[in-house]
Amino acid sequence: MENMKNKVVAVKDSLAGEAQRHLDNLTKPPGSLGRLEEFAKRIVAITGERMPVLDKKVIFTFAGDHGITEEGVSAYPKEVTPQMVFNFLRGGAGINVLARQAGADVVVIDIGVDYDFANAASLVSRKVVHGTANMAKGPAMTRQQAEQCIQVGIDLAREYANKGYRIFGTGDMGIGNTTPSSAIASVLTKTPVADVTGRGTGISEQSLRNKITVIEKSIALNRPDPKDPIDVLAKVGGAEIGGIAGLILGASSERVPVVVDGLISTAGAMIAYEIEPKTADYMFAGHSSVEIGQKAMLRRMGLAPILDLNLRLGEGTGAALAMMMIEAGTRIYREMATFGEAGVSDEIINQ
Amino acid sequence: MENMKNKVVAVKDSLAGEAQRHLDNLTKPPGSLGRLEEFAKRIVAITGERMPVLDKKVIFTFAGDHGITEEGVSAYPKEVTPQMVFNFLRGGAGINVLARQAGADVVVIDIGVDYDFANAASLVSRKVVHGTANMAKGPAMTRQQAEQCIQVGIDLAREYANKGYRIFGTGDMGIGNTTPSSAIASVLTKTPVADVTGRGTGISEQSLRNKITVIEKSIALNRPDPKDPIDVLAKVGGAEIGGIAGLILGASSERVPVVVDGLISTAGAMIAYEIEPKTADYMFAGHSSVEIGQKAMLRRMGLAPILDLNLRLGEGTGAALAMMMIEAGTRIYREMATFGEAGVSDEIINQ
Repeated sequence: MENMKNKVVAVKDSLAGEAQRHLDNLTKPPGSLGRLEEFAKRIVAITGERMPVLDKKVIFTFAGDHGITEEGVSAYPKEVTPQMVFNFLRGGAGINVLARQAGADVVVIDIGVDYDFANAASLVSRKVVHGTANMAKGPAMTRQQAEQCIQVGIDLAREYANKGYRIFGTGDMGIGNTTPSSAIASVLTKTPVADVTGRGTGISEQSLRNKITVIEKSIALNRPDPKDPIDVLAKVGGAEIGGIAGLILGASSERVPVVVDGLISTAGAMIAYEIEPKTADYMFAGHSSVEIGQKAMLRRMGLAPILDLNLRLGEGTGAALAMMMIEAGTRIYREMATFGEAGVSDEIINQ
Repeated sequence: MENMKNKVVAVKDSLAGEAQRHLDNLTKPPGSLGRLEEFAKRIVAITGERMPVLDKKVIFTFAGDHGITEEGVSAYPKEVTPQMVFNFLRGGAGINVLARQAGADVVVIDIGVDYDFANAASLVSRKVVHGTANMAKGPAMTRQQAEQCIQVGIDLAREYANKGYRIFGTGDMGIGNTTPSSAIASVLTKTPVADVTGRGTGISEQSLRNKITVIEKSIALNRPDPKDPIDVLAKVGGAEIGGIAGLILGASSERVPVVVDGLISTAGAMIAYEIEPKTADYMFAGHSSVEIGQKAMLRRMGLAPILDLNLRLGEGTGAALAMMMIEAGTRIYREMATFGEAGVSDEIINQ
């Protein structure tokens, strides 16, 4: 994996300031479009474009399996991962529907599914593992595999930036993957496992207690080093989480804004952030997930979620919805009339 | 004004139940799309259609002036109301931009602007007053004028339902109109004026204190009867607020869902609700406004806002954005594959 440390530059506040001056000249009271103005300002500052257009959009849905499903942490059997990949490729899943509405393409990547997709034409094959190993019995991946997963994401980000895509969204598919995501949240935010672990696809109270125990055991056994994010990804992470981390590192190095989905994507974002904190300048937190582990990570990265719609599906669904709001901000920025153009008085009285 | 009491029927829970069964058969864990599922279910129940399509959408932006601006309650001079109406008609305002993105038409209605729009072709002229009277010195409108305003909204709702529009959004324009809206909120939710009054377009701390005093004085002078919503609208309301109330009554009687914007629209919704509480079955609260007066009214009507983006512009901007989320729900409902179609296992284990 290449060193990304000096390839990500901090976003310039001066560009955001210039953008705010344009926003204040539009026919509305200053600041009255709230977060839409924030989104527009950040897109200008991230891209360095005077009048950014978010015409080409793409959601990357990384799929991987998890050895930890042997421990009964999910409501669904792991066979559902490849079944859902086929569903993505046919356009029938939630992410396909919402990406169509947002005008975004969906790229599905097999980075770690425990299934051989022989002839799936539109699937991007970048398999690093056939499912991770069971982290309750040893490391989920080797360090080399973890680095390979990150590199897959970096390469995809570069490829799609070169193809002219203006904004990325992250997504995931992998039965069992809230378990490594909560493990990462616990290790990197130094929060007790019980405070960052939820019901995933919908497990019972008893299964939730088991899930917490399994994560605690996996952390105790593997002793991931919180100062070494790649060690954390390898020992208690997952392939799709690594791919997402790499995508965010690559997007940041290419100055492409990236919308982070829910818990699993935020775990990937945390890995990217711990490798290079300046990546947070390029991230938008799509939504506040029902999965509680996401909150501590967003707090650590200083990100405020855009939507709060009680989502917990993953796939990139929250990112696709949030993209519509970010695009609304840039459309306001480009298309609204200024006071001068509209002949509207911008005189403010009795202040 | 016609009697709307027995023209609004309660929405049937049985239809929502049927819709939930379809949602639970889609390729996702049950309930994992959170509020999108709620939106889909409500649209099915409201319209009575098995597979609703929100293809024709419209935002109604009602414009009116307010005599109370004489008391220095707004940051802008009242000349801005007609200037902004021209901006709407040219397509340069915030609502035009966001409605275009949402695929919604914008209908601009002069229901009470203190300006003579001689030749504005695309403006809908339904002027009831040339601005309201100063409510700090007497009633804002006569009871007859208030009823006329409501009838304007009812008639428009019927007209656009007949034209085949599937979902409505409400919007407002009127310098000074957060003042009557906070007055309505205070009277109808029995909350102290100071707890439901905000800075509108952006007034100073001192102007805010004056605004609160002016509203308290207007209520004390006019003594609107909280049991008589039309009395409240007449004495401390405004023409555009009445138009919005009527639109919601009309939409409900035609079984058309209606997305309510921020403070001013919610004041209109409260008037409609007090006339006929079953109208709440047809409302979606678009967003949580920065204007604090909205919260108490939403609580009383039992509505949870869809978005929270620190908006305080009005015009229908929050309604246009929220429409995208409601449409996302109906698209999920129509377009996602079922477990059977996709060959995905719906067997849930270890519950």
